[in-house]
Amino acid sequence: MSEIEQVIEDYVLGWNSSKPEDRLLLMKKVLAENCLYLDSHLPKPVDNIETHCQLIESFREKFPEISLQLSTAADSHHGHFKLTWKMVKKNGDVFLGGNFFGEVNQQNKITKLVGFVDKK
Amino acid sequence: MSEIEQVIEDYVLGWNSSKPEDRLLLMKKVLAENCLYLDSHLPKPVDNIETHCQLIESFREKFPEISLQLSTAADSHHGHFKLTWKMVKKNGDVFLGGNFFGEVNQQNKITKLVGFVDKK
Repeated sequence: MSEIEQVIEDYVLGWNSSKPEDRLLLMKKVLAENCLYLDSHLPKPVDNIETHCQLIESFREKFPEISLQLSTAADSHHGHFKLTWKMVKKNGDVFLGGNFFGEVNQQNKITKLVGFVDKK
Repeated sequence: MSEIEQVIEDYVLGWNSSKPEDRLLLMKKVLAENCLYLDSHLPKPVDNIETHCQLIESFREKFPEISLQLSTAADSHHGHFKLTWKMVKKNGDVFLGGNFFGEVNQQNKITKLVGFVDKK
């Protein structure tokens, strides 16, 4: 597993954690302090770890049965990566699918994460 | 068609042009002067329009029968876009497939284009 794949595995683990304090620890491990997060549902970018975690928590409160999974292994070059994700219900049904495109710094911390949701 | 979709259409048109002077004109229309281009085959990023065009020309000299096509319409938000592309032979066979992720500035000129090639 490459260093970027490990970072992404920890991000997904943090996303899926049921304990906000565990999520924050993992997110502090993998995200740069001013990591920019963007997806099409956000009115404006998120640019810090605390708000990033709050965003995940508000989604998880709304959809507690959903977990985030990688559909394919991440591909990366020159500090940039892409991956395909799916949000899966407990019964295995796919709720949403999409891509993340991201960047890491020299310490392999994520500095930018841009989400795209597949059109249905 | 959104402004970003139009920009991408012109980029693809420029890519496929058989005349380097037409390609340069279209690329100057859609790329910011210092547009960063990255893909996994490049040892280092390309950061200007002339080198960007030379890269396409050297590929096209090697594979003159290949054209670039979008597999799906581009999706975009907050000045970021993604698209799925394929390189197609004259007989319709797909030679390569992959994604582009990119960014545009406020003038809708592409400032960054990052390519990923699907693993076979």
